[in-house]
Amino acid sequence: MTGHAAPDVLYGTTMDVPLLVSEMLDHALANHPAREVVARRIDGTIHRYTYADAHARCRRLAAALTGLGIRLSERIGSLAWNTHEHFELFYGVSGMGAVLHTINPRLFEDQIAYIAADGGDRMLFIDAATLPIAERIAPRLPAIEHYVFMGTREQAAGTGLDGLLFYEELLAAQADDFAWPSFDERLASTICYTSGTTGEPKGVAYSHRSATLSAMCMSLADMIGGYRAGSVEAVMPIAALFHGNGWQMPYTAPMNGHRLVLPGRAFEPDKILELVRGEQVTIAAAVPTVWMTLLDHLDQTGGDFGELRAALVAGSRPPPSMVDTLRQRYGLQVSQTWGMTEALGVTKATVAPGAHDTDGMTPIAQRQGRTNYLTRLKTVDDAGAELPRDGQSVGRLLARGPYVAGAYLKEPGAPRDWLDTGDLARIFPDGSVEIVDRLKDVIKSGGEWISSLQLEAAATGHPAVLQAAAVGVAHPKWQERPVLAVVRRPGAELTEPALREFMAPLLASWWMPDRIVFFDSLPVSGTGKVEKRRLRTLLSEDPGAGAGASAQDA
Amino acid sequence: MTGHAAPDVLYGTTMDVPLLVSEMLDHALANHPAREVVARRIDGTIHRYTYADAHARCRRLAAALTGLGIRLSERIGSLAWNTHEHFELFYGVSGMGAVLHTINPRLFEDQIAYIAADGGDRMLFIDAATLPIAERIAPRLPAIEHYVFMGTREQAAGTGLDGLLFYEELLAAQADDFAWPSFDERLASTICYTSGTTGEPKGVAYSHRSATLSAMCMSLADMIGGYRAGSVEAVMPIAALFHGNGWQMPYTAPMNGHRLVLPGRAFEPDKILELVRGEQVTIAAAVPTVWMTLLDHLDQTGGDFGELRAALVAGSRPPPSMVDTLRQRYGLQVSQTWGMTEALGVTKATVAPGAHDTDGMTPIAQRQGRTNYLTRLKTVDDAGAELPRDGQSVGRLLARGPYVAGAYLKEPGAPRDWLDTGDLARIFPDGSVEIVDRLKDVIKSGGEWISSLQLEAAATGHPAVLQAAAVGVAHPKWQERPVLAVVRRPGAELTEPALREFMAPLLASWWMPDRIVFFDSLPVSGTGKVEKRRLRTLLSEDPGAGAGASAQDA
Repeated sequence: MTGHAAPDVLYGTTMDVPLLVSEMLDHALANHPAREVVARRIDGTIHRYTYADAHARCRRLAAALTGLGIRLSERIGSLAWNTHEHFELFYGVSGMGAVLHTINPRLFEDQIAYIAADGGDRMLFIDAATLPIAERIAPRLPAIEHYVFMGTREQAAGTGLDGLLFYEELLAAQADDFAWPSFDERLASTICYTSGTTGEPKGVAYSHRSATLSAMCMSLADMIGGYRAGSVEAVMPIAALFHGNGWQMPYTAPMNGHRLVLPGRAFEPDKILELVRGEQVTIAAAVPTVWMTLLDHLDQTGGDFGELRAALVAGSRPPPSMVDTLRQRYGLQVSQTWGMTEALGVTKATVAPGAHDTDGMTPIAQRQGRTNYLTRLKTVDDAGAELPRDGQSVGRLLARGPYVAGAYLKEPGAPRDWLDTGDLARIFPDGSVEIVDRLKDVIKSGGEWISSLQLEAAATGHPAVLQAAAVGVAHPKWQERPVLAVVRRPGAELTEPALREFMAPLLASWWMPDRIVFFDSLPVSGTGKVEKRRLRTLLSEDPGAGAGASAQDA
Repeated sequence: MTGHAAPDVLYGTTMDVPLLVSEMLDHALANHPAREVVARRIDGTIHRYTYADAHARCRRLAAALTGLGIRLSERIGSLAWNTHEHFELFYGVSGMGAVLHTINPRLFEDQIAYIAADGGDRMLFIDAATLPIAERIAPRLPAIEHYVFMGTREQAAGTGLDGLLFYEELLAAQADDFAWPSFDERLASTICYTSGTTGEPKGVAYSHRSATLSAMCMSLADMIGGYRAGSVEAVMPIAALFHGNGWQMPYTAPMNGHRLVLPGRAFEPDKILELVRGEQVTIAAAVPTVWMTLLDHLDQTGGDFGELRAALVAGSRPPPSMVDTLRQRYGLQVSQTWGMTEALGVTKATVAPGAHDTDGMTPIAQRQGRTNYLTRLKTVDDAGAELPRDGQSVGRLLARGPYVAGAYLKEPGAPRDWLDTGDLARIFPDGSVEIVDRLKDVIKSGGEWISSLQLEAAATGHPAVLQAAAVGVAHPKWQERPVLAVVRRPGAELTEPALREFMAPLLASWWMPDRIVFFDSLPVSGTGKVEKRRLRTLLSEDPGAGAGASAQDA
């Protein structure tokens, strides 16, 4: 067939319609107009309205931003909790082509100021809880032209913030006939900074395309037909909207017609459970420490999860005992997924029993999800060579796909082909993933790895243990040795020998911590995770550090 | 904020990974390598292998095509049934960047020759059943350089086809280390021609992007978590692969880890049911006439659908009695979806009870699905004005979205913003759709519309009616009047007065057909639908046409 002229390329004759974030709310307006969004206000009261109401308000916001001179790709910061106004920013801001930059108010104020400035934010949306933070950091944020207060004039009385605008007044001044613009789906829709446990925080910009594809992949049924309609579900992110877009629930809920329930700023277990039960939440998402807190609260107070049927767990690997309790005592489907700011929802839930449940490998409910569509996951050894997907080999977990970050904001150079997640993991033949540890948390002892997660899981299996964290402490002979920090349940009694006796059958003898130290509480970061760096420093500075006999010596 | 310089646009920092068809099979290889594809061969025997096997063979095919000089966007025709080889073409051809052009062997040979030539096919893949067709039309297809026979040399003995290649020999000559190329996701992946009931057949080119998005939207759960894993499903398109890519099942099955069951060319009810039961099919897809045939067969022979739990119905609006029988007698979830060659899967299944089930509107199980994500549907009046989504107003159904055709192949001019589907429909507030009739089939009588579908549904509700088709026949006073053609069930007795008596309470009196004519069978097209144009001619030429009393006169 030589000599045949190369043809012109042939494009599909399907329509050229971009994947835009505004489409998700438009879909809800057209198909689920009366479905509710229920959110706790900062003052603790409950606000409820429909997707049709939300849609109208988002268009008013978009019109107001346009009137304020905001143009395509300009950055709008938010320093706010899970309220209905914050939900609206995900559409009012991104829908008109600007970029919503969600900032975590739990961070140190230095970090907040750094992140707002680094993100290039022109406006900052704040609520009654974050107003004091904004007042304190405003002098360091000269590029912020307006603060927009999502609350009443009374709540902001006496503030000295310059250029303060009021959200409700901005919306009231607009009509709700704003038409979403159409633009390149590769443009940024939101920005989220990693918590920056090492170095300065780094920003990831999600595109309209990546947000859409990620939300769609998080909504895949693995099947055609025979599923529950989205309209019978009420979903609640017990995770802040500034954490990876609230696990994409501001997107997946309207896309699928779910009722959306938002906890405001009230993450206390009694307040969460009040909403879960009172609003008949069927699917809730939280990190393991939040689930542990809820379980602990139920232990003390009795009661249950109401209509809840599925517990979505992500953020870090949960202790097996927590998964078992949710499943067996409360009858919940535990759906683990795995992701990070740089790679949201790259695994999908581990709900269904798989082929490997009974072959001696980790049961699938204890794994961190199955590889989601459009994602490639692989594990590599130190030389970068791919490891077999055999459920045994452990290596650095790498990810690739259209909703995986290839770069950070302002990062020079070509984007990466694969994201190094910083996790150690094994991949099973069915694409399910088991996270072994964070690479930075794994304890390197005598040339071998000890999983801090597995040590913690062994300890938290004891009924008197509320929380446990294992870190590696420098050791002259073994490089590092494990030390375990434990918080007892209130009122519970537990001695070090008793805990050692409990853990012994669960661990190889050389994994046994050199020391077990009891604390009243552990240092946690702005994202609710135990700060292992601080803990390691604390335990290294302890005069007894390294003085005890090492289990590995024996 | 005037005077502020417009910023450069900000792109997301997520990876630039195109949506390609090859990703679907790669996903199956990585996550479901041992799941089976089971297909009946042309000779009636069963072939079974895994996605891992299929993946290797598809790469060999891609390598072979590359070796034959096939380049990006070149068209490769297939004239073939639902075999494993045909499944392989969806990846081997599209995956290497060429365009698979599926042609319906049931069409008249004139049409087949026209379509193959119009599509610009350089090669034509054929099987043992279609070889005789290829032999007859080859003289009219000078652009075809090679015919590739998907069968044994023995099966093709004595053929006079020039340039015949053998599929297995092509594959055997290659290694399976072919690496899929990456290219623009907007490039065409497959071409499908509409059956061309009016004018010449017209081609739609699906892009890699549209195929991916359509398959993803057909796999949405409407929810996060708590679903059945894809790996517990076995899906079977009882629809040919040349009909809208076999309802996308060659894509959705590997994407979701379903076992895929293909019927070869054996669409006889006993052969279909043998596969459904023997292979524990859980989800099957077919047009209403096929489901009717299966129900009729079960009526006569007894037995059931085995493990089947969901019946996917599309292609045309099914009679309500059929839906009820599938649901009530056989306990199946009936999932209606609606689509056409120009718009595959633009509604998703109507499985779950909706808010309108009991308010006097059409029950949701009887509707043709809910608006799928990324699709916009609207109904318009004759002046093009949008009608309310109230479940009442009937108008022309228009569709828009990234997997809806905006043009046909070689069509000059700008693509359309909205596709006119040719259907009359009503849309409900929850986005569900009820097709009232094809615009060309609706009977225009005295300035009003009579739905041929509803007439047919009223007739097929009678247990002695196997099939019914209503057409409008010219009438001097009323423009058209309905005439009903009926096929009785084998052995059943039914007179015209008895059928009229049965239908009377179900229809407005002026909807009652002027005549009811009994036939042994009805003319059907290559796509299995009743050919109403031919039927109308037949009934108009009938010497009795128009002679009977008109029900509308009364």
